[in-house]
Order: sequence, then structure tokens, then C-alpha cells
Amino acid sequence: VKVVDLGSDFRLDTPERYAEAYGSTHPFPDELGGWRYGLPELFDLEGADRVASPGCYPTAVLLAVAPLVRAGMAAATDIVADCLSGVSGAGRSLREDLLFGEVAEGVRSYAVAVHRHRPEIEMGLDLFCQSRSRVTFTPHLVPIQRGLLATVTCRMTRDLTRSDLLDALRDQYRDRPLVEVIDRPPQTRWVTGSGRALLSAFVDGDRGAIVAQAAIDNLGKGAAAQAVQAANLMVGFAEAEGLSGSGLLP
Amino acid sequence: VKVVDLGSDFRLDTPERYAEAYGSTHPFPDELGGWRYGLPELFDLEGADRVASPGCYPTAVLLAVAPLVRAGMAAATDIVADCLSGVSGAGRSLREDLLFGEVAEGVRSYAVAVHRHRPEIEMGLDLFCQSRSRVTFTPHLVPIQRGLLATVTCRMTRDLTRSDLLDALRDQYRDRPLVEVIDRPPQTRWVTGSGRALLSAFVDGDRGAIVAQAAIDNLGKGAAAQAVQAANLMVGFAEAEGLSGSGLLP
Amino acid sequence: VKVVDLGSDFRLDTPERYAEAYGSTHPFPDELGGWRYGLPELFDLEGADRVASPGCYPTAVLLAVAPLVRAGMAAATDIVADCLSGVSGAGRSLREDLLFGEVAEGVRSYAVAVHRHRPEIEMGLDLFCQSRSRVTFTPHLVPIQRGLLATVTCRMTRDLTRSDLLDALRDQYRDRPLVEVIDRPPQTRWVTGSGRALLSAFVDGDRGAIVAQAAIDNLGKGAAAQAVQAANLMVGFAEAEGLSGSGLLP
Amino acid sequence: VKVVDLGSDFRLDTPERYAEAYGSTHPFPDELGGWRYGLPELFDLEGADRVASPGCYPTAVLLAVAPLVRAGMAAATDIVADCLSGVSGAGRSLREDLLFGEVAEGVRSYAVAVHRHRPEIEMGLDLFCQSRSRVTFTPHLVPIQRGLLATVTCRMTRDLTRSDLLDALRDQYRDRPLVEVIDRPPQTRWVTGSGRALLSAFVDGDRGAIVAQAAIDNLGKGAAAQAVQAANLMVGFAEAEGLSGSGLLP
Repeated sequence: VKVVDLGSDFRLDTPERYAEAYGSTHPFPDELGGWRYGLPELFDLEGADRVASPGCYPTAVLLAVAPLVRAGMAAATDIVADCLSGVSGAGRSLREDLLFGEVAEGVRSYAVAVHRHRPEIEMGLDLFCQSRSRVTFTPHLVPIQRGLLATVTCRMTRDLTRSDLLDALRDQYRDRPLVEVIDRPPQTRWVTGSGRALLSAFVDGDRGAIVAQAAIDNLGKGAAAQAVQAANLMVGFAEAEGLSGSGLLP
Repeated sequence: VKVVDLGSDFRLDTPERYAEAYGSTHPFPDELGGWRYGLPELFDLEGADRVASPGCYPTAVLLAVAPLVRAGMAAATDIVADCLSGVSGAGRSLREDLLFGEVAEGVRSYAVAVHRHRPEIEMGLDLFCQSRSRVTFTPHLVPIQRGLLATVTCRMTRDLTRSDLLDALRDQYRDRPLVEVIDRPPQTRWVTGSGRALLSAFVDGDRGAIVAQAAIDNLGKGAAAQAVQAANLMVGFAEAEGLSGSGLLP
Repeated sequence: VKVVDLGSDFRLDTPERYAEAYGSTHPFPDELGGWRYGLPELFDLEGADRVASPGCYPTAVLLAVAPLVRAGMAAATDIVADCLSGVSGAGRSLREDLLFGEVAEGVRSYAVAVHRHRPEIEMGLDLFCQSRSRVTFTPHLVPIQRGLLATVTCRMTRDLTRSDLLDALRDQYRDRPLVEVIDRPPQTRWVTGSGRALLSAFVDGDRGAIVAQAAIDNLGKGAAAQAVQAANLMVGFAEAEGLSGSGLLP
Repeated sequence: VKVVDLGSDFRLDTPERYAEAYGSTHPFPDELGGWRYGLPELFDLEGADRVASPGCYPTAVLLAVAPLVRAGMAAATDIVADCLSGVSGAGRSLREDLLFGEVAEGVRSYAVAVHRHRPEIEMGLDLFCQSRSRVTFTPHLVPIQRGLLATVTCRMTRDLTRSDLLDALRDQYRDRPLVEVIDRPPQTRWVTGSGRALLSAFVDGDRGAIVAQAAIDNLGKGAAAQAVQAANLMVGFAEAEGLSGSGLLP
């Protein structure tokens, strides 16, 4: 029996990260090593039996920035990930702060510096890049239903052009049907209802900074659709089998 | 005759900054020195004759972070300012990308690394802190009408607590009626229709980072209302005369 | 002691109407006669001691159509009132159907043919016009925070022009500071944050119909602001004392 | 060659209706008789060569009310159709009144009593019911991207229950895959991205009125998807071939 776990129980690689993220001791620490982190474009899932599907924020941040860190273009420390999420990121919870009259016509951050997805982002980077990353992660709630935009600013390690960045991203995602690298700022509207991620990156030359961005539908890439993508790879199907890349616009 | 200029012609202190921001040579470079930068809580406007009223993005970013840089708590370089603005930040322009059907249910960045408010932000920091600041500024459009949230992440220069940051902000804005320092993430909804700014700051300890935030109504603090505030000070009135701090909720 | 009741306990004139609206027996039927219905532009509140402030839907519908019925221009029966309300009409209730993710990007009706404001609308017409009115009332929820638009279609009793209708409305509301008759379809955006009502009316000639409309902010005219207006009249102040007609746009 | 025309040139059955709707003389009046009105659930399109696809407002109104009129339950005159449409009903026009800052947080009517879809609605009724119908039609713009809700109030011709109405609708749409009759007020959110229509109807007993409602995605049923449905029938395919009934929620 093969399992894709949509929850967060087996996403983190060590009991230490689990404790950092969730504030409690993992009840089955010995089993953590038996699961793969299920971000299909960054980690090999073919033939896997146990896959923990990633959170929506880590999916977007890692897709945008991990290839740049592994290529030595972006530093693994001093990374700033400011992310904007629609309300469905919180599920359908009956919470006063998610009422239409509390969300519409406003924006706000939450869980600044303490969100549980921060350790997951750092783990993804460390596994993929053999780094000891440091990420400051600030999630924001914006008045949309679906959609997540990650804006990730990091230190540029050497003199680079925008083409260098886009090439590095395109190299990583060549032949992957559900990730597209574009030359404009990605919009969440362009992936509503879709399992795709749109990526881009920019150079802020004089400041020595890189701005990498990813737009996903948090109910597509990042949740159910990505779990199906993982399952496809685990059993040998084409990874986008049964998934739609096209979405709905407007 | 006293003048408050709402436009951007005399906001920048040198022809070099003007050229960096606007891509052209300033036609009257000799006059730049005759204007004060009109952010009333940071610069002395009493009795001034010529005041250039700040842009909305610089207002929010500077209010949040300038006191922390001047106090030596935050580094002046490697600052990341990710800002979210409602559509009225662009005025009432008849542009396809501002149609309801292009804005609703979506978020996106624009002018990444090249927005003209970046030099203005750096100028404000340099004038207030005697620094040579470096800011990576990424503006985002969010589907709200009014409101601007600045999330500014910077390097912490020494070991600090959150109380240290809040105290530094409160010291700066003591007795200023239109700035309030709060202990929660500020929401733009809380200042809709108001001339007030709400500020807060957070420590991301292990990462050595500070996250400072400001929420304003971009049509209040940052535009017309702030120009009235400046005019009040120029002629000796109470600074909040004729301005509303209360706003409209929801 | 003078009292303005914002609740619905004493709005209806008879125990029968109360039972029709609320499905239960009024506990103090003898007191119903001691209260005036507090729609200041239609009913005399000067010097009153007990005023029951109207609901938001009845306020909008009655302002738009009552003068036309009293003038004999519109029939009192076969009236169709389709009304659109923002979420604040339901208060700040923690209800799943009021979550952002259930309201945004959608419209729906509710309580079709059974809403408790229907008897109140008919009572207002009957008191003001000495009629036995019949109204089919369908409330709709729309994804806005504040605002209520009433579209009231009724039978035209004789050959009339649009000017006849607008003149009748203007006659009724002459010298009333919080009602304005305009020659275009009223928009709720134009009264956001305001205690004003905007009215207009149209003739659908060949079909023998009148379409009368009112736009209010349901948290202004229709709730708190209207109660203040009533109180002003009860104690002899100017009726708009302390109330803002100007609102917030956008 | 078979043709489905998405435009309005050949929707109306007579030059008189065309002139009433569009204010000009039809250039090819002799050809009007050669086209069928392409509302597949009400008019037979099998084997047709020329089909004029209906407007979005007529689609919704006719689906809700035409079966009730033909069954003799609802009068063909004194019909009130108040309809709410999202911005995509106007196409992607660059118009100031469609800017986010003019649409969000507001509702308004437009083209009251003069909208060009009124004659089309009456024609559909007359063709389907052999009636001489009279409809007062008031379209409204609501701040959503997709979706159209028709609320149609008409006189009840005899004593009926709600079940009678729902049965009549179900009889008409039995075996039609893209129309569903439900027992609750239909929400536009339930058909976003779908080619389906949701219908319901209510009795307002004492007032002798029927309230019939239809919710569609104006970019699905009512536009492109409905044209495909018509084409399917013209060439002998299953009518929902290639169309999705499921949509996107939220």
C-alpha cells in the first residue's frame, strides 16, 4: 500500500524541526525517516511508498528559490519570504477573522516570525541544496479565495543578470508540465483552478539582491492536485495525469 | 505664499536621485535644495515655505523602519520592503490592468526592482539616519480600493527584544496624533478613511531579522490628508487640525 | 426619558403584523400603540417620546416608493421589492454562510417570500398611504460590506412621465438634508459611510410599470445614523446634527 | 456549413423587435426567419443549420420562468425580472465604470427599462408560450467576475404550491444534463466555471406571486458553452459533449 499524507505529521525530517514547527514532541520520531518530502519537481518520488505532501507556502517558496540557491546564485541565509495567501489557505474554518466583513477590503500579516511553515521551508532548502538556510517568513492574508504569491528576496552571491536566473529556473523545470518560468511578474489569477506554478525572478543589481516569485493556486499546486501529482509518480503514471494545467480566467 | 506640492517634482534631494527615480534630468536642479521632505513625524516642517509631500509607499516604509535604523537597531543596508497597495494608489487611471475583471481575486507585483519610490525611500532613510541605505523594494497590487501595508524586513544589528523595537517606535512618535504603535500586526482596514498610520515591529531572533510594518490608507496618510497635516505645521496649527483619525470600519 | 429602540420589538403597529413577521405572540401587545415608526422623512417624530427605528430594508423600500403610492401614481398592490444588501446587514454573526470564502464572487437570495421585513414594509406603506398594500419582497446578499440597494417595481396607475415621478419624490423630500433625488440609477458606493439616501425612479412605459430605487448605507441610513436623526427630531435639534452626509468614495 | 452566431444579429424574430432592441433598421430582415433561437432546453435545435445563440440575461430569465408561463401557472404580463450580473457580462471593455475602483464594494442598476435584452426575453416567452408577454427588466451590476442571477417575479394565475412549480420545472428539464432544479435559492458560486443552470421557484401565497430564479455563469451557460451545446445538437452529438458541468468552488 502506497500512502500520500496531506497532513503535516511526516513532512519534517527531524524531531528537532518538528518541535520547532509544532511546539511539541513528535510521537513517532523513528518513522520520520521513512517518508519523502513530496514536492515532485525538486525531490524524486518515483516508486516511493510514503510521501508527505508539502504545505502551500513551502511549495511556492521552494519552487521559486531552491534552484537559485543550489546553483550558488543566491545565499541560503538572509532569505526574506513575504507570501500572500487567499482565505482558502486556512480551510473552511468558522473563524471570526475569516468573515467577509473582516477580510474584504483589507490586508494583514499574521504569525510573523513564528509560522509553522518556516521550518518546513528551511528543511526543503537544506535537503535540496545541502545548505543551512535561514529564512524570515511573513505570511499575509489577502482578500481572495484562491491563490498564493511568494515574493522571495535573497542576497546575490555574484554578479548575475536576469537571464542567468531565468535560465537556472528553466534548467531545473525543463520537461516538468506543471511548472512554467515566465518573464513577467506571475499573477495568481493566471493559475486559478489549475495545478500549475508560475515562476519568475528579477535582479536588483545595485542592491545585490534577487527577487524570485511563484504564483500558485493554493488549492491546486500545494494541496490536493499536488498530492495526485505525487501519487502519479509513485505508481509510474505521467505526473500530470488527471490534473488540469489550464485553470479558469477570469 | 506657502506651498505643499503633492507631486513628485521636488521630493528628491539631488539631481542624481531624481535621475535614478524618473530616468530624466531634473529641469530645475538648483531648486531641489529649497524644499523640505514633508513626512511630518520624521522631518521638521514648522514654519517651512516649500514642502514636497511624500509618496504613499515611502511614507509607510519610512514610518515603520526609519526610527529603528537611526537607533542603530536595524542595518541601513539589505533592507527588504515588500508593500501591498490597493488600486487607488494608481489614481483613477483608465488602464486595462485596473479593470475589476483584472484585479479582483488576484495579487501580483509590478515594477520589481525599478519602482520610482525606491530612491525616495532611500533618501528618506539617509536624511533621517545619516546613512547610506540600500533597499530592495517590491510593490504589489492587491484587490482593495484603499489601503497600503508595508512589511519591511531588515538585519538586526545586536540582540534585541520586541519590546526594544516597540519602545524605539513609541519614543519617536510620542505625542504625534496620527501615528500609533500597536502590539499586533496592523491591518489596513483599521485605518480606512483615516489619516492615521498604525505601526508594529517583530523580532525574528534566530534569523537575526527585524520585521517592521506600517498600515495606512494611501488616500489618507500618504496623500491628501498628509499634505493638510504638513500645511497645518507650516502655518502653526495643530497638526491634526481638520483631519480625521477615526476612519470607517468595516 | 425619551427612547429610540434600534430593535424590532415595537416597530409593527398590530399584534397581527408582529405575529406574521416574527412567528410568535407579542408579549406586550398593549404597548405597540405607544411607539412611532421612526422613518423621519415619512413620519412626524417631533416631540415623540417612544420611537422604534426601522429596519434597513423597509427604510430603503419605503423612501423610494411610499410617496409614489400616496400620490396615486403607483398601485399599492403587486409591488415587487428586490433588494441587495451587503454582509453587515446581518451584523457580525459568526455564521459559515458569511465567511469570505462563501460570500466573495457570488450572489444569492434568501428568505424568499418569508423575510420578516415584508410586514414592516407593508405597514409603512399602509400608515403613510392609507392603503392595503401587497409587496413581494426578495432580499439578496451581495459581496460588499456596506450598502443596500432597493429596486421596487410597481404598477403605474395612469400615464406618467419620468419627470412626474421625480417631481413627486422631490416634493416629498424637499428640505430634508439626508435624502437626495437624482436622475441616474443610485449607487451604494455614493453613500458609503454616509447617513444619506439616494433615490431615483424610472418609467417603463409600454409595460405600465414604475421602477423606483433607493441606495443607502445600511449602517448609516437604516441603522445607527437614522436613530440619531430620530433622536435629534425628538428633542428639537436639527435632524442632521452630528450626522455626516458626505461618506467615503471610493 | 452550419453556423452558430454568438452575436445578436439574428436572435430576434421580427424587424420590429430588432428595431425596439437596437434602435435601427435590420439590414437583412428577410434572413431573420432562417435562424433558430438557440436556447437548447426550450427550443429544438436538432439538425438546425443556423442558430443564434441567446444573450446571458434572456437565457437565465427564460429558463426560470418560461415553463411556468407555458403551464399556465404564471401570467405572461406584469413580469418583473431583476437580474444581477458580474462584470464579465460587459466583456473586457476598457470603460471607467468597470474599473476595480468603480465596481468593488458597490451595486447599481443600469439601462433601466431600456436594456436591449428585454425584447429578446419577451420574444423567447412568446415563441415558447404562444403569449404576448410584458416584462419589466432591470439589470444590475454586482462586484463579481462571473455569474448571473435572475430573480423573476410574476403573477400566479391560480392557487399553487411550491411543489407544483418545482414539478413543472422538473418536467421541462427532465433528462437535460445542463439544467438542475433545486429546492433552495440558487447561488452563482455553485456554477462558476460551469455550463450548468440552477433553477428554483417560490410561492408568495397571500400576494399571489411566484418568484422564479436562475443562476448561471454568464461565461458558461449564456455564452461560449451554450454555443457549443447548440452545435452539439445541430450535428447530432450528446448536448453536453465537451462541456463541464462541475465548475470551481470556491
